[in-house]
Amino acid sequence: MEQRKSASADDLTTLFSDVRGLSEALAAPLSDADATVQSMDDASPAKWHLAHTTWFFETFILRDHVPGYRLHDPRFPFLFNSYYEAEGRRHARGRRGMVTRPTLAEVLDYRAAVNAAVVAALPTLADDVRDLVTLGCHHEQQHQELLITDILHLFSENPLEPAIWPAAPKVPVAMPAAIGWIDQDEQVVEIGHDGRGFAFDCEGPRHRSLLAPHAIADRTVTNGEWQQFIAEGGYREPRWWLSDGWAWVQRERIEAPLYWEQRDGVWTRFGLDGRRPVDPAAPVTHVSFYEADAYASWAGARLPTEAEWENAAARHDAHGGNQLDAAGPVEPRPAAGGPAFFGDVWEWTGSAYRPYPGFAPADGAVGEYNGKFMNGQFVLRGGSCATPRGHARACYRNFFYPHQRWQFTGVRLAQDR
Amino acid sequence: MEQRKSASADDLTTLFSDVRGLSEALAAPLSDADATVQSMDDASPAKWHLAHTTWFFETFILRDHVPGYRLHDPRFPFLFNSYYEAEGRRHARGRRGMVTRPTLAEVLDYRAAVNAAVVAALPTLADDVRDLVTLGCHHEQQHQELLITDILHLFSENPLEPAIWPAAPKVPVAMPAAIGWIDQDEQVVEIGHDGRGFAFDCEGPRHRSLLAPHAIADRTVTNGEWQQFIAEGGYREPRWWLSDGWAWVQRERIEAPLYWEQRDGVWTRFGLDGRRPVDPAAPVTHVSFYEADAYASWAGARLPTEAEWENAAARHDAHGGNQLDAAGPVEPRPAAGGPAFFGDVWEWTGSAYRPYPGFAPADGAVGEYNGKFMNGQFVLRGGSCATPRGHARACYRNFFYPHQRWQFTGVRLAQDR
Amino acid sequence: MEQRKSASADDLTTLFSDVRGLSEALAAPLSDADATVQSMDDASPAKWHLAHTTWFFETFILRDHVPGYRLHDPRFPFLFNSYYEAEGRRHARGRRGMVTRPTLAEVLDYRAAVNAAVVAALPTLADDVRDLVTLGCHHEQQHQELLITDILHLFSENPLEPAIWPAAPKVPVAMPAAIGWIDQDEQVVEIGHDGRGFAFDCEGPRHRSLLAPHAIADRTVTNGEWQQFIAEGGYREPRWWLSDGWAWVQRERIEAPLYWEQRDGVWTRFGLDGRRPVDPAAPVTHVSFYEADAYASWAGARLPTEAEWENAAARHDAHGGNQLDAAGPVEPRPAAGGPAFFGDVWEWTGSAYRPYPGFAPADGAVGEYNGKFMNGQFVLRGGSCATPRGHARACYRNFFYPHQRWQFTGVRLAQDR
Amino acid sequence: MEQRKSASADDLTTLFSDVRGLSEALAAPLSDADATVQSMDDASPAKWHLAHTTWFFETFILRDHVPGYRLHDPRFPFLFNSYYEAEGRRHARGRRGMVTRPTLAEVLDYRAAVNAAVVAALPTLADDVRDLVTLGCHHEQQHQELLITDILHLFSENPLEPAIWPAAPKVPVAMPAAIGWIDQDEQVVEIGHDGRGFAFDCEGPRHRSLLAPHAIADRTVTNGEWQQFIAEGGYREPRWWLSDGWAWVQRERIEAPLYWEQRDGVWTRFGLDGRRPVDPAAPVTHVSFYEADAYASWAGARLPTEAEWENAAARHDAHGGNQLDAAGPVEPRPAAGGPAFFGDVWEWTGSAYRPYPGFAPADGAVGEYNGKFMNGQFVLRGGSCATPRGHARACYRNFFYPHQRWQFTGVRLAQDR
Repeated sequence: MEQRKSASADDLTTLFSDVRGLSEALAAPLSDADATVQSMDDASPAKWHLAHTTWFFETFILRDHVPGYRLHDPRFPFLFNSYYEAEGRRHARGRRGMVTRPTLAEVLDYRAAVNAAVVAALPTLADDVRDLVTLGCHHEQQHQELLITDILHLFSENPLEPAIWPAAPKVPVAMPAAIGWIDQDEQVVEIGHDGRGFAFDCEGPRHRSLLAPHAIADRTVTNGEWQQFIAEGGYREPRWWLSDGWAWVQRERIEAPLYWEQRDGVWTRFGLDGRRPVDPAAPVTHVSFYEADAYASWAGARLPTEAEWENAAARHDAHGGNQLDAAGPVEPRPAAGGPAFFGDVWEWTGSAYRPYPGFAPADGAVGEYNGKFMNGQFVLRGGSCATPRGHARACYRNFFYPHQRWQFTGVRLAQDR
Repeated sequence: MEQRKSASADDLTTLFSDVRGLSEALAAPLSDADATVQSMDDASPAKWHLAHTTWFFETFILRDHVPGYRLHDPRFPFLFNSYYEAEGRRHARGRRGMVTRPTLAEVLDYRAAVNAAVVAALPTLADDVRDLVTLGCHHEQQHQELLITDILHLFSENPLEPAIWPAAPKVPVAMPAAIGWIDQDEQVVEIGHDGRGFAFDCEGPRHRSLLAPHAIADRTVTNGEWQQFIAEGGYREPRWWLSDGWAWVQRERIEAPLYWEQRDGVWTRFGLDGRRPVDPAAPVTHVSFYEADAYASWAGARLPTEAEWENAAARHDAHGGNQLDAAGPVEPRPAAGGPAFFGDVWEWTGSAYRPYPGFAPADGAVGEYNGKFMNGQFVLRGGSCATPRGHARACYRNFFYPHQRWQFTGVRLAQDR
Repeated sequence: MEQRKSASADDLTTLFSDVRGLSEALAAPLSDADATVQSMDDASPAKWHLAHTTWFFETFILRDHVPGYRLHDPRFPFLFNSYYEAEGRRHARGRRGMVTRPTLAEVLDYRAAVNAAVVAALPTLADDVRDLVTLGCHHEQQHQELLITDILHLFSENPLEPAIWPAAPKVPVAMPAAIGWIDQDEQVVEIGHDGRGFAFDCEGPRHRSLLAPHAIADRTVTNGEWQQFIAEGGYREPRWWLSDGWAWVQRERIEAPLYWEQRDGVWTRFGLDGRRPVDPAAPVTHVSFYEADAYASWAGARLPTEAEWENAAARHDAHGGNQLDAAGPVEPRPAAGGPAFFGDVWEWTGSAYRPYPGFAPADGAVGEYNGKFMNGQFVLRGGSCATPRGHARACYRNFFYPHQRWQFTGVRLAQDR
Repeated sequence: MEQRKSASADDLTTLFSDVRGLSEALAAPLSDADATVQSMDDASPAKWHLAHTTWFFETFILRDHVPGYRLHDPRFPFLFNSYYEAEGRRHARGRRGMVTRPTLAEVLDYRAAVNAAVVAALPTLADDVRDLVTLGCHHEQQHQELLITDILHLFSENPLEPAIWPAAPKVPVAMPAAIGWIDQDEQVVEIGHDGRGFAFDCEGPRHRSLLAPHAIADRTVTNGEWQQFIAEGGYREPRWWLSDGWAWVQRERIEAPLYWEQRDGVWTRFGLDGRRPVDPAAPVTHVSFYEADAYASWAGARLPTEAEWENAAARHDAHGGNQLDAAGPVEPRPAAGGPAFFGDVWEWTGSAYRPYPGFAPADGAVGEYNGKFMNGQFVLRGGSCATPRGHARACYRNFFYPHQRWQFTGVRLAQDR
């Protein structure tokens, strides 16, 4: 976390209450069972997200900085710590779905108790502790997005294909125009967080980066374009694929984006509103890095580097576009108002997730935050329809393994010039 | 199923209502999440047991024999069929825990609807269909025992180790006397179901069997005796073990019965009443065939054959002993009133589960019942504390793989004479 | 090993030299590499078989009973012990193929040295030690059969499909007549080794066994009959299969016996003479217990019990039929001279491999011999084309897991009467 | 492959003959079995290396460019193609060790025949085909290094721990001085192949790169320093490790570099000369990226980027240092003559293996060369004691997965300034 000036207590109370409230609203349609089951190792139960984010505030704010605070339940830290080795033993990640008790209702009680204690304590906290509250809010926003995508995955495993929310009304939108290319000469640019406002540690330090001459697309790839890739044998032709990607395609019998199925000759996708036809005008999503890279090769292009992306995105409004405002149906939508760099889908870049020059992890348990994940993953940029509005930034670095695709992940192309 | 005379409609209504009611009573303390999660491939969610047993009645009674019956929900057969290949595609066994919807409440509604329809139809059903109702009741009793042991396993995976029922009051009981041996000369005996009353297909035909001279113990092995086995290095000495058993011990790092843990130097076990000290006077339970066989070798004995067991048990009351009468704490208990062959723990025999001479599976989907499991498993006899009273018989053949031990399984010794 | 009278030193020298010589003849066509590679966990390198059988004599005869004997190489016991836990640490079974050194030539030197020492010592050995030499010879004969089947498996993994021996000349033989049934009434028979001559421990004690009324086929199932089973969908119809067998068929995509492939519409099999068309008149081989059991169900029959088999075979010549006489092509052949119970293929019985009444393992390391494998496997009877003539007996109990089929395994049917 | 001017036929004949001769010299001490066995999926049999490099010349030179050439054996391409999807089906990588035939001698015959044909054809080949011969030589040099490291791995799996070569005589060398740091200001440098002489496709295009201010160590980390890391608990302290690295350490129970074992309190390593004590003055080797990164964190440093490394190495002699000159013992040695950037050990960089700006794979089967491996791996620089002298360049990019360590891999530190 790098920031110059801590938020005021009032602003922070508002942020804290808004963020905490949104989590609870997202969980509102879930049954106790919905909130408990873990559908795969990569995902966590909704109840765990609700409790883990609460554990973060209870541990790093209340336990460490509020004299006399007593833990809501001394057995919870073992259950709801995620990966903070310095915080001691924790429950095995793949067994999170075994915890039927505490119930969802008890976890909501836990939230309420911690919420009250944090709000009461906020005016008294020192600046550096308030910064931890801000960190906790952004941390919870990350988990909000995971909660949404994890629930989507769980529901997709149910043969009944239940919907969590009704479908949003469809607004007729023209098919997007052909991709336009934004050309860039060789140049040295500054990227990374500039220290104003909140950012995660991995987003800095701000530093100079040399861009090679290139062009970047003015919009993301659509479902319609992806159907063309499928129709032309994209998933059956090894030459478009990275070697590991091709092995993955063969082993997992991948033939389309996650949640797509052909029914009666029509491509459908499963979403938070159940199974419905694929919208050809909307950005493709739930594709892995392997698929994104193969598509780019097939299209005679490549993925942008994260520096190219950040340079192009810096002049766009990070709070605009199709992002998460409230509990309710979320999905990538056809672009109504022209090109955007934020919202709809996280965009795979060609950059491996590695430290910036001068990066050093913060000290203490919070310092485990991001640095230790810096191998084997690729950077994604831009935020998605499931990213809480206000969470994304031009310098924001999201990261996943190249085979993962249960997030709202999509593709923007680039080319050497 | 082999039986001479079908039950009367009245008797059958009573049996049906009692059995169905007990399942619901067993589920009463469960939350929606408790009833939904699957803790391992061998286990099923409680909700699935409740629904699958209902599907059995709905399919083989209502759908097949009640004109005009409409399925409660046409999507349920796919979810709640277990292994009846002839009944079509079904949900993958290992993914049963993904079905958060229908909820527990909806499954209880399903039960109520099918219960009403079956009770209404009962007086009109032909004898052979009534026999299917009887089969369905015994089938449900099997699932009641599984529901109990599956829930125990699930709760054991929760680091909080919750109890489903309070502990039963402890009645002081003297340590059991040394094992007494019941000697038997060589003889030809008849074993297997004699056709009176209900039995599963694998229990017949009744046939003659030649017993070698032997002795069989008058009680099962106790926890105290098992602690001696552990203390003398039983789990660390390959010569007591079958080769596959020794590989299992090494691979799984087995050091004691399932659910046992040493805490502060004291052996404890996890049970339906939480974690408590092991009672040395009670029968040992949650041991695999491998462990039972190793113990017998260590003790200079062997496991009885199923024919030896049945011959010895035939003169005992199959409805006596510590069996399941109602929802509430169940666990093996010290024998208060002398030797028993029924209740407390299923007793591993040394007999592989194979067909009796003359065995032939029944026709149709119900015919898939038991014959297809006849390899790789061992027969257990006697019934346990979780077996509904009335379900067990001297000729009853239970069967599990030699490594499995989440059932209430125990050990009775035998010796060649 | 149970026997009344030890072999004379002269007889034993002849047996020992013959057996040892046959192993070396079997290995003669093998290159150093052929003899070193391990093609799967179930198989061992030929070099290992040659060395392990030598280790047996060196350990249990020379080391234990010849004063002043010095080990040929003190590092060999670790490499060439198989599963005798009491003999200390040993090389992991699945890594036997890593041992490129000692070379095949060095192992043959090891054999020559041990051969000379054993032959020199034989006249001086006490009776019980001579019995161990006899045991070692029979042990080596078992490994001769494994050496043949393991090499066949290895060569089948080579895309070039090399032949180890030229094909035997084909003698035109009429298709076998329809199966004839040998009827048997209920009766008490004696089975098991009677103590005259050599036998492995698991073959005794001789004991009485009650046979149910039944009929047993007068010949084994042929390739032609098996092709009919395939053509009628036998491998695609779950109702013929045990549940574990069906899972195996699905998981391993089994569609025919091992080594069978359809080429240009013709069924071929890979054998020690390379790939050739399947002979419809010859006994089917390389089928698993699962396949044997499914075939029997499809044919309206069942597999015989081992007691039924032994009773029927007892009046046949155990040294007759198509068994191994010398190094050279071996494969099941059409029966020229009428029904036989020995040779061609090991016949799966429906009997699980379990101890006979009164069985007790021998003491000491040799006592680990057979008892510890008595779970999960099925008994095979009769000997195959790869069984050294003289090794098989009516009471001989071979055993394998139900999915294994790289041995020369086949099927004889039986029926309840 | 990028190069301006093709080699002359004479120079190429010399290069070709030298390279081909070295492969055969490396194989000289190997038995047929040594050359056949595959010790793990990552490794290949020596025989396969010898044949595959020959297949490359036979396919891309003789078959494609020498009229009338007939394949030495039409079955070999299926066996000895590696990963060229465009060249059709090929033998599964993990089953390469099953191919006991052709024998080593037959493969050497194959080599001799192809050698003669290539040498005869060389004067007649067009420039672009001669470039393919050059490519084939460099390709073979890569496989020479793999042959050495794969044989080392195989021999390490043999409990007898055989040596392939006698140990080199030990020359007493003083312990290296403390690391000196070479400081660099921010600067734009050119890296990548400049088009003069041979290079693999991934080494270009040459391009400008912006270096941040940093310092790079003047020597690699030694065994003595690594022992300190072990002694201070480096392998037991999660905070030094990447998350995936820590999981790897736990899962594989890693406690020291590959081939190290503590015997009687002394650290030893297995090498091509058998097991010997670790030399504290020599560069540490057989460490994974995970270990290299953890060591750097523990040492308060980081790994250099590949651009930093190339910039620093450019002024050093790429043909100097401890590299492979001839068959015989190879291992990292204490630096006698001051700092070197080439030889001894490949040095892990912190750079993910990704394409340079403007990179495009070559067309055709040869174009599959390097681009498709560009995910999940890290770049190594500098060449090792097993790299044929003349093969390495300052711009050379080697790459392996972060857990791999059977190559001669080591560590050079860097720091932000």
